[in-house]
Amino acid sequence: MRIGIFGTGMVGQALAGRLAGLGHDVMIGTRDVAAALARTKPDNYGNPGFGPWHARHPNVKVGTLAETSTHGEILVNATAGSASLDVLRQAGADALPGRVLIDVANPLDFSKGMPPSLLVCNTDSLAEQIQRAFPALKVVKALNTTNASVMTNPTAVGDGEHTLFICGNDPEAKAKVTEIVRAFGWRDVVDAGDITAARGTEMLLPLWIRLYGALQTPLFNFKVVR
Amino acid sequence: MRIGIFGTGMVGQALAGRLAGLGHDVMIGTRDVAAALARTKPDNYGNPGFGPWHARHPNVKVGTLAETSTHGEILVNATAGSASLDVLRQAGADALPGRVLIDVANPLDFSKGMPPSLLVCNTDSLAEQIQRAFPALKVVKALNTTNASVMTNPTAVGDGEHTLFICGNDPEAKAKVTEIVRAFGWRDVVDAGDITAARGTEMLLPLWIRLYGALQTPLFNFKVVR
Repeated sequence: MRIGIFGTGMVGQALAGRLAGLGHDVMIGTRDVAAALARTKPDNYGNPGFGPWHARHPNVKVGTLAETSTHGEILVNATAGSASLDVLRQAGADALPGRVLIDVANPLDFSKGMPPSLLVCNTDSLAEQIQRAFPALKVVKALNTTNASVMTNPTAVGDGEHTLFICGNDPEAKAKVTEIVRAFGWRDVVDAGDITAARGTEMLLPLWIRLYGALQTPLFNFKVVR
Repeated sequence: MRIGIFGTGMVGQALAGRLAGLGHDVMIGTRDVAAALARTKPDNYGNPGFGPWHARHPNVKVGTLAETSTHGEILVNATAGSASLDVLRQAGADALPGRVLIDVANPLDFSKGMPPSLLVCNTDSLAEQIQRAFPALKVVKALNTTNASVMTNPTAVGDGEHTLFICGNDPEAKAKVTEIVRAFGWRDVVDAGDITAARGTEMLLPLWIRLYGALQTPLFNFKVVR
């Protein structure tokens, strides 16, 4: 499947590498391709810059935002939540009708210090903002409640015995996304409802961040025991 | 131990019955004792009114808010989140210094229809509001992320293999609360940090509510798999 990913950071890299490894035709989109490939400095977590990462993942295409938008039968928003709407607008994410956008982003606000709060929550969510701004897209919120490593390799934690939450307005789009994440190793995919349920999954982030601090590792996830 | 519980609803009843059954000296506090005992109508979920409930739990004392406040070595806020600060003020909850208050309430706002949103979240929480209003209390947020039945009998779901989150500023108070909830059957008690971590555990409610809808049962809980 042709997949277009917005976001060259840790999450975009992890998803691009994993999806390409599974045989998908993946393009990562960025505002400035040459500048992205020239980034060699590791991020704050020690992950390689985009240039060295891409040198190790030559099977992932790199394109402009607009190229990525038209490349993808499925689009993935893996940008910082604070930039998502702007990036998707620049990309013309709704140029082609009826496509699925997997929204992995969280609207984290780091401007007031640590731990971050949310830029939008409670009576709205980033996923709803995106769905309203791009009504031609079928937005599915998914994969935003784990770190990049657990997201793409869930079986590395607790043998995969934990839960992925998805939500969105379109049942077929959710079925497509479920198929994709099952290939990552996700077995317990819980459909939390329509896109307004993203309020709940985005609002899980404040607890996730506290647990990251308490457990001193991002290698954990929530399981819905029932 | 002498325990004073504010709140005559489903949560207050469940906690009072369980704690009294474990041998604690429990008093439930209410604004008007006679009126509370005269309530025979079941609630929206089919739980008995306070009068019939108390007839089956004569070992639980019933007192005014002020009596309950002085009865408890440990206090429990099991009121509706929208009323908590008002009830605790009327009770004079900080009349005696150095006591632990277990805050079980959630600041749910039902005024805008279903599902409820939160009255306070993101950069503040009900637990922090209570801690600021009553600095003499040692507030521990706990037990607010499950329904009353799971809260008091965690082993009834998934053999108890799931997680209880607690937080608060006072380590000794958290240790006391941990001891109490372990007697309920909680084995995985995760200390999420100081009282500001209550933002995270209260913000879990929107997801909890969506899952209640998706799973069609309140008999579930989150486990932190790591």
